[in-house]
Amino acid sequence: MPKYTIGVDYGSLSGRAVLVNVQTGGEVASSVYEYPHAVMDTNLPDGTPLGHDWALQDPQDYLDVLVHTIPAVLLESGVSNEDVIGIGTDFTACTVLPVKADGTPLCFLPAYQNRPHAYVKLWKHHAAQDKANRLNAIAMARGEKWLQNYGGKISSEWTFPKIWQILDEDPEIYEEMDRFIEAADWIIWQLCGKETRNSCTAGYKELWNKKTGFPPDSFFKALNPRLEHVIDEKFSRSILPLGTCAGTVTPQAAKLTGLKAGTAVAVGNVDAHVCVPAVGIDGPAKMLAIMGTSTCHIMMGTEERQVPGMCGVVEDGVMPGYFGYEAGQSCVGDHFAWFVKNSLPAAYLEQAEQEQKNIHQFLREKAQKLKPGENGLLALDWWNGNRSVLVDVDLTGLLLGMTLQTRPEEIYRALIEATAYGTRMIIENYRENGVPVREFYASGGISQKDPMTMQIYADVIKMPIKIAGSRQGPALGAAIFAAVAAGGAAGGYENVFAAARKMGKIKEKIYYPIPENTAVYDKLFAEYRTLHDYFGRGANNVMKRLKEMRKYIGAEC
Amino acid sequence: MPKYTIGVDYGSLSGRAVLVNVQTGGEVASSVYEYPHAVMDTNLPDGTPLGHDWALQDPQDYLDVLVHTIPAVLLESGVSNEDVIGIGTDFTACTVLPVKADGTPLCFLPAYQNRPHAYVKLWKHHAAQDKANRLNAIAMARGEKWLQNYGGKISSEWTFPKIWQILDEDPEIYEEMDRFIEAADWIIWQLCGKETRNSCTAGYKELWNKKTGFPPDSFFKALNPRLEHVIDEKFSRSILPLGTCAGTVTPQAAKLTGLKAGTAVAVGNVDAHVCVPAVGIDGPAKMLAIMGTSTCHIMMGTEERQVPGMCGVVEDGVMPGYFGYEAGQSCVGDHFAWFVKNSLPAAYLEQAEQEQKNIHQFLREKAQKLKPGENGLLALDWWNGNRSVLVDVDLTGLLLGMTLQTRPEEIYRALIEATAYGTRMIIENYRENGVPVREFYASGGISQKDPMTMQIYADVIKMPIKIAGSRQGPALGAAIFAAVAAGGAAGGYENVFAAARKMGKIKEKIYYPIPENTAVYDKLFAEYRTLHDYFGRGANNVMKRLKEMRKYIGAEC
Repeated sequence: MPKYTIGVDYGSLSGRAVLVNVQTGGEVASSVYEYPHAVMDTNLPDGTPLGHDWALQDPQDYLDVLVHTIPAVLLESGVSNEDVIGIGTDFTACTVLPVKADGTPLCFLPAYQNRPHAYVKLWKHHAAQDKANRLNAIAMARGEKWLQNYGGKISSEWTFPKIWQILDEDPEIYEEMDRFIEAADWIIWQLCGKETRNSCTAGYKELWNKKTGFPPDSFFKALNPRLEHVIDEKFSRSILPLGTCAGTVTPQAAKLTGLKAGTAVAVGNVDAHVCVPAVGIDGPAKMLAIMGTSTCHIMMGTEERQVPGMCGVVEDGVMPGYFGYEAGQSCVGDHFAWFVKNSLPAAYLEQAEQEQKNIHQFLREKAQKLKPGENGLLALDWWNGNRSVLVDVDLTGLLLGMTLQTRPEEIYRALIEATAYGTRMIIENYRENGVPVREFYASGGISQKDPMTMQIYADVIKMPIKIAGSRQGPALGAAIFAAVAAGGAAGGYENVFAAARKMGKIKEKIYYPIPENTAVYDKLFAEYRTLHDYFGRGANNVMKRLKEMRKYIGAEC
Repeated sequence: MPKYTIGVDYGSLSGRAVLVNVQTGGEVASSVYEYPHAVMDTNLPDGTPLGHDWALQDPQDYLDVLVHTIPAVLLESGVSNEDVIGIGTDFTACTVLPVKADGTPLCFLPAYQNRPHAYVKLWKHHAAQDKANRLNAIAMARGEKWLQNYGGKISSEWTFPKIWQILDEDPEIYEEMDRFIEAADWIIWQLCGKETRNSCTAGYKELWNKKTGFPPDSFFKALNPRLEHVIDEKFSRSILPLGTCAGTVTPQAAKLTGLKAGTAVAVGNVDAHVCVPAVGIDGPAKMLAIMGTSTCHIMMGTEERQVPGMCGVVEDGVMPGYFGYEAGQSCVGDHFAWFVKNSLPAAYLEQAEQEQKNIHQFLREKAQKLKPGENGLLALDWWNGNRSVLVDVDLTGLLLGMTLQTRPEEIYRALIEATAYGTRMIIENYRENGVPVREFYASGGISQKDPMTMQIYADVIKMPIKIAGSRQGPALGAAIFAAVAAGGAAGGYENVFAAARKMGKIKEKIYYPIPENTAVYDKLFAEYRTLHDYFGRGANNVMKRLKEMRKYIGAEC
């Protein structure tokens, strides 16, 4: 009798369960549930207003995903819960919430339902930038060594700016929370009845290091004396590597989900990192780019290197025994969406509608007729700042080379090319800092839908690109970790490497670099790099000055 | 009894006559005639194909303008031809044609009707760029001093590249022509029956200098031995200053036009330069910008200075007794038109249509709500190269500062601001080279229709801007020179200064710089200048390299 696991992928707006055959990786059934509260960014349900740059969620939505999707995949597939040997999950991160000692979210308590800080802070809650700035300045002044594991700068999206914002703005919530926990770990707690912490979010978002632990209490004290013991008071020093079994499904969770009590539950995981085994990656130097509105680059290495401009290096951060490296580009699909919304002439839209084509498809058909270099354009892909390798949110976009003959599809292609150059910068930056990158994989929407962009990437980075075989990479990855949590004896796997090789998949179609294209793109990348360094490394800080001027004028930034 | 003159303005697609009251400058009647042959840029009327970048006209159209418009303004106004004391004209330049010794255009002769080189080469005939490049290289190698009177480089639009192209491609036409003449002077020949040459086109387009004459024969010989005596064989060394009377209307021309035989005819003039008295400018250091698809900046000075990047300095080139300085921006209205055609989203177009607004007006209403600096953007206005002060057609556009929040009206405003910075560069360049600029006037379509742009210009250049009082600046200017040709005794004026003071006009509305805006624009201009120099003066020639790459790839450039 074949065995199955279920992977549940928690995205920004919905959760999706996929039921997977453990022997083949075949995806037997899937079900999506959209969060009723979606992202709360203007007010709470009762009308309580939220500040600028806030983004909250209601954890009840996460529970409702389990209630709706797990019975649905069991029903659709006709698979008995007897044959489901494990469940795994993945989550957006850093998506965090304050809870009581028993795991109850503070926002579930009537006393705090109208308190914004009692809710889940979604990864893209950006209202703690001032805290991040101060944290970075203090860490740098103190010479905190861990800072270099995060490319020299931590993000306002991460754990400590967020909890510090709570302490500052609603100290009662800070006081009342017994735990501050990633939603990734909280959902596991709901399934198996006990708190666990996974090495991925602990490492990438909570500044934890397998060898040296968390930053010292003295550092937190330097931020605010009341934060001195924040780790022991609100977190846990017990961190489990990815692939560990967190526990088993409790009778209560069994009732909720239709799973059998006692089913293995994998420790929490993160939506990007969990994709790695889903494409069959089982070792170091193989980079996976998850390409959507933004792009996340995940790779494993055999050594801990401090690489400027990466998002983080974490031991056991992707698979146990390796150092997980993460980098990112903050504006990829968003870039193209901006163009279509703000710069696409009516004539193009009309023609696309007449031909009944998606506008991106229509533009691609025009853009792919151009040879590399034919548009005469060069862009810096910084419409949303630069995450790697410059780690600078105050950088902005640039487009160069326009003439009166320049057409929209030429600009569109230039924006795509710019994101490819950005990826090459990340790859070359790793190599220059002693971290090899030998293979390249892509997953996410763009990798599935956009062959032109993938060919441009192959030509720019000069490596073949293998494409994820599943459109549900995160859920498949979560199901792979579930098979590892269940273990070989139960019909799963002894380790994630074996599981990845059997359950991970790529498409037959591989994008190979075309030599005459790479020759042109080598030249264009050299130009990109010159501009990248000129505007990004201090020779001309005009972008920052313009942004500063806007603030001074009182415009929205 | 009031006296009148007629000014005839020959544009690129039509000619317009205006009948003007000599005492008041009042425009009594006007009439337009569109050239039946318009611009011939693909083939001759008989189907003979033209090369890439060609632009020809048929001189019969110029005669037909006289035949249609002069009777029309006499009829419309009810003014007797007895009271019309003079006629003046202005023309696009360098717009040139080969003629026989009696003035007959070669293209009028049946033998040459199918020969492209027998026709008028319009100013924007760009097929002699290779000749211009060689001419510049040879002039520089020989250390020709006159080259510095043209900013160090002459344009492919000018006389000698054009005649050299004829010699090279159709030597029989070269041989058969007795004269190579500006259409500006040819039309005067048709009116008064004798060949004259004006100081404006001779100076700006034929490299003539009042003190030193034409370049030496040895220079022309260095281009091509058959060009050695080109001046004496095809041109004339007798050049008349602007404001001179060329002669009087012949009986034949009188019959054609309805003017009285014996009416004074002013020497030929150029559409931009002729506008100067039309706004009442009567002396040095007062810059006039004629703002349309491109912008031309005309100003007089008391000394001959060699200013890098200007289009030319010519004694008597604008008004007699002064040195006329010309500079230009090759992409102004064209810039905004490009934006509307290529970058304006459908939603904006729809809304403008719903509100029944011209799209530029619609955009301006949005853009003028922005404060200086609020768009966070900076552009280099080089979509069509840079005429002044860099004199480099291979430069291209740049836009910097975009974020995911950047909206179309912000980009639109950035493009307008960039053209204003370009004007300020020209002004500062003159000042830095010892040529004072103390007042600023604007004429042309943008000056009349676009108050937002004019205010931005005032804020950027930090001078009040006076606006032309007539929408027919060139025709009014031509009528002013006609009144000077007629002379004081006939009811006209003794000199153009007196005529300009009486007949020139500006609007009551003057655009004054707003101090809080100039403070911001000073900062933004400093940023513009840094980028201008970085990309335009050799520190980073990426724009040229991208353009070169396009050529290599075989794209249209």
